[in-house]
Amino acid sequence: MLRTHTCGELNISNLGQTVTLCGWVQKSRDLGGTTFIDVRDRYGLTQLVLNIDTDETLRETGKSLGREFVIMVTGKVIERTSKNLKMATGEIEIAVENLEVLNSSKVPPFMIEDETDGGEELRAKYRYLDLRRNPIRNNLMLRHKMAQEIRKFLDSRNFIEVETPVLIKSTPEGARDFVVPSRMNPGEFYALPQSPQTFKQLLMVSGFDRYFQIVKCFRDEDLRADRQPEFTQIDCELSFITQEDILNIFEGLTRHLFKTVKHIDLASFPRMQYADAMRLYGSDKPDIRFGMEFVELNDILKGKGFSIFDNAELIVGINAKGCAEYTRKQIDELTEWLKRPQIGATGLIYCRYGADGTLKSSVDKFYGEDDLTNLAAAFSAEPGDLILVLAGQTDKVRKQLNELRLEMGTRLGLRDKNAFAPLWVLDFPLLEWDEETSRYHAMHHPFTSPKPEDIAMLDTDPGAVRANAYDLVINGTEIGGGSIRIHDRALQSLMFKHLGFSPEEAQKQFGFLMDAFEYGAPPHGGIAFGFDRLCSIFAGLDSIRDVIAFPKNNSGRDVMIDSPSTIAEAQLNELKIKTTVQG
Amino acid sequence: MLRTHTCGELNISNLGQTVTLCGWVQKSRDLGGTTFIDVRDRYGLTQLVLNIDTDETLRETGKSLGREFVIMVTGKVIERTSKNLKMATGEIEIAVENLEVLNSSKVPPFMIEDETDGGEELRAKYRYLDLRRNPIRNNLMLRHKMAQEIRKFLDSRNFIEVETPVLIKSTPEGARDFVVPSRMNPGEFYALPQSPQTFKQLLMVSGFDRYFQIVKCFRDEDLRADRQPEFTQIDCELSFITQEDILNIFEGLTRHLFKTVKHIDLASFPRMQYADAMRLYGSDKPDIRFGMEFVELNDILKGKGFSIFDNAELIVGINAKGCAEYTRKQIDELTEWLKRPQIGATGLIYCRYGADGTLKSSVDKFYGEDDLTNLAAAFSAEPGDLILVLAGQTDKVRKQLNELRLEMGTRLGLRDKNAFAPLWVLDFPLLEWDEETSRYHAMHHPFTSPKPEDIAMLDTDPGAVRANAYDLVINGTEIGGGSIRIHDRALQSLMFKHLGFSPEEAQKQFGFLMDAFEYGAPPHGGIAFGFDRLCSIFAGLDSIRDVIAFPKNNSGRDVMIDSPSTIAEAQLNELKIKTTVQG
Repeated sequence: MLRTHTCGELNISNLGQTVTLCGWVQKSRDLGGTTFIDVRDRYGLTQLVLNIDTDETLRETGKSLGREFVIMVTGKVIERTSKNLKMATGEIEIAVENLEVLNSSKVPPFMIEDETDGGEELRAKYRYLDLRRNPIRNNLMLRHKMAQEIRKFLDSRNFIEVETPVLIKSTPEGARDFVVPSRMNPGEFYALPQSPQTFKQLLMVSGFDRYFQIVKCFRDEDLRADRQPEFTQIDCELSFITQEDILNIFEGLTRHLFKTVKHIDLASFPRMQYADAMRLYGSDKPDIRFGMEFVELNDILKGKGFSIFDNAELIVGINAKGCAEYTRKQIDELTEWLKRPQIGATGLIYCRYGADGTLKSSVDKFYGEDDLTNLAAAFSAEPGDLILVLAGQTDKVRKQLNELRLEMGTRLGLRDKNAFAPLWVLDFPLLEWDEETSRYHAMHHPFTSPKPEDIAMLDTDPGAVRANAYDLVINGTEIGGGSIRIHDRALQSLMFKHLGFSPEEAQKQFGFLMDAFEYGAPPHGGIAFGFDRLCSIFAGLDSIRDVIAFPKNNSGRDVMIDSPSTIAEAQLNELKIKTTVQG
Repeated sequence: MLRTHTCGELNISNLGQTVTLCGWVQKSRDLGGTTFIDVRDRYGLTQLVLNIDTDETLRETGKSLGREFVIMVTGKVIERTSKNLKMATGEIEIAVENLEVLNSSKVPPFMIEDETDGGEELRAKYRYLDLRRNPIRNNLMLRHKMAQEIRKFLDSRNFIEVETPVLIKSTPEGARDFVVPSRMNPGEFYALPQSPQTFKQLLMVSGFDRYFQIVKCFRDEDLRADRQPEFTQIDCELSFITQEDILNIFEGLTRHLFKTVKHIDLASFPRMQYADAMRLYGSDKPDIRFGMEFVELNDILKGKGFSIFDNAELIVGINAKGCAEYTRKQIDELTEWLKRPQIGATGLIYCRYGADGTLKSSVDKFYGEDDLTNLAAAFSAEPGDLILVLAGQTDKVRKQLNELRLEMGTRLGLRDKNAFAPLWVLDFPLLEWDEETSRYHAMHHPFTSPKPEDIAMLDTDPGAVRANAYDLVINGTEIGGGSIRIHDRALQSLMFKHLGFSPEEAQKQFGFLMDAFEYGAPPHGGIAFGFDRLCSIFAGLDSIRDVIAFPKNNSGRDVMIDSPSTIAEAQLNELKIKTTVQG
């Protein structure tokens, strides 16, 4: 090794030792003829000192060092006169006896500090410099630790990690595939997996019993802040189990991670029916760090002559506790916020429960004191509260009120990043109607099993059929989801039929899986966690971007390496493809 | 769980317990009114018994079970009358009290036994059934265990696993890339990584200090038995180290794996110069499980009037110990074998050292007894030995003799699959001349550092420049390779110049890396192991195919899922590409 120690480990017990360190110049300052240099590596920071006792040439070298120069330095560990007890190495410094510049550095385009002055684009272009900053590196070290703990936990529960292929087959179901032209099979394409779903099910047919994989998956979707074209999944599948077993094992995994990585003991996770989640929170991934549950108000507010309410399918509200003092202007702003196209509410009705006990609403013309008292009672409201009410078509109004609830939760400081509220959401619908294509889509995926007691409804009322499907939600973010799978050819065929596949199409696309079901497929089920998202929650980040070493931007570009890029004509010719983009 | 125990864990200590097992019917036989059924899962095999004491309907069900039916069975653990002490569960059986068929099975297309009757193609199509066989599943469990141990070892040495991107940029150096058209950036393509080389170097620039990743890599090459278009690499990189540190750490990893996975203590690994490996074994990956080293014979055999030898650049031979009894026919066969186009030798000269002490050669016309005595002495040959000699152009004749040496090693039983002979091969040439393109290619890759003392020769004698590059070889198979890298922009530019890049091309393709070198790049180096190959060596297999769950065939096809395949016109249109294959 070029070094005897790292920059994070020397302390008072090393006094008098001659050591060699390697690292980057974090900063350098001259104080009355003495030069102090902070040298940094992954492990920490150590102070070097060059003073009157140091060789003259060496002092000149020391003074000449720029930020981010890479140095190798040898010297004696001495006690500092002014100690910094906040630093692990803060009681010592190194009296430099030798100093070699291993590499120089241009002035970096932004500060390599915990708080940097670099803008997002600049940091993306120089990602390798941004990765030098402690917060980003710590995220990736956290990610490494989480992956290690996940593997340790699952290995101890008899799960085997099996690598499934990356070059697979394009299928019409689900999101858009990335495809890869095959040179050896001209005119044909591989696809990159959106998940190893069918392969893990085949491993169950093979008797692997318990499978997992921490694996890259790919979706060619338009990107948002929290989406990447390539993302990582903790993918798991088990045989001879029930839903209850899966919930227990993966609640165990999640608690193990919180315990070992964040030293937090989580209580056992509450469970909620999908239908209840929609009714009480207007979302299949409620943030239950705070209450502010929906109260449905049709019984109380309909039939009083207010046509908006009278014509609404659903009238529903929340109680923003302690917000009675909101000014008219604040409420107007909130109304405008709700009317933005992303949310699309048409209006907001409120009822103020004054500190003096008076109730005042924005629709006093239609509702008397009794009505408002009933309204307040429905929320168990108290003086100082502000009741916010929306009305309209059920699905839409629930979505809108969900946004409002989250916004009010944020404003009221109820969404603490250091508090963790996990939740199982259960009994998702099997199918959801898609207006655009006028057909049912699988809500989870086509391999999810309907609840046995609901199978009969598949023909009569497909939308009402519930699935043995479950999501793990933490702080309002979906962290994982899974289901008990179909393991019977006939039922799988029936599913494909309901999803609009002809028998021929189903056989062409998924014949290998349905064939496999005829050779002794065991009952099985599984779950997949979004590893990037789980890491971002552990790191207290809003976006997954900074738990990924080299993320892509919203156009799917890696601006550092400048990819994607054009390729040589010869490559296209070998692949027997051409682009149809006009030069 | 549907079961209380697995099929591999019940023994005499469970006598009298009522248990429930789930698994596959391995076999079923009737003996005088008693039905014995072996039920199998990943963990083992347990015998079920249905006899005169069993409920009549249940006995009928038991008799009706076909091979590979999936059953759930409840019963009491009883002692067997005739025990099978070779099986973990061989002292007990289950007196069946309840039996449920969870799924039936068609008759499988081949036997699900350790030795199967299925041909390769059939097994590939029904890979999910082939994976049920113990030997294949055991390979994948071995692979899982190896991956766990690799991660444990590297984590304990401060390596951080960082995921690098799969959608990267196509580069002209190295093998052919798989490419992925970008929908969001029409006319542009991502490439799948042949290795995360540049990213791991950037992580070193970022100060990650020690990185590793077990990662899928991709090469669009024509396939051989031991190549797959996607393969897995143990990819590692370290900063502030010397070659010696890398050899020590990864020798440590390899020994740790042999110790924990195979319970074998390996002695410290011998090291050999590349030049010596070529001279003594004609290969940069010598199999040193056996000696049979080359002896160069120019001094002894030239100038005696035998024109083939007199005109040859190199005369070189091996001593096949104990083969003096080879018949003329056997030697002729060997000669024919050597003349096949794959090897391309022009002839084989031999000298027999008879048991009676006489020396007899195929070129007695030109060589007298003294010459032959000198020849025998050069090999320290003894009575009973057979000296085999080839002559020709140095590189070619070494390759040919390497093939002959390996063949003779195999024939003599010197290549025991349960013996492991690791070897470091050091000091590879930096560049190799490519006749086809009339230019130098990087022998390892363009980021490998020349030895500092050889840099001056880059301009005068590029082919003689040695690299700080090393390979780990086990039993004649290259398991891993790496190098100390260039970390200086000027030297990296010089390398690209020698590889025929214009400065513009170099900047366009690898500008991000060379730019990074200007911001404080530390000295660094690394290594990558072929994980599939390492697993196959541990499993005692010749091919990597059966340490991969879902391998592709020699045309790059997955015959099980029938991939690659054509994709929809709409997909091509969205990607703005079309195929030029004639319908």
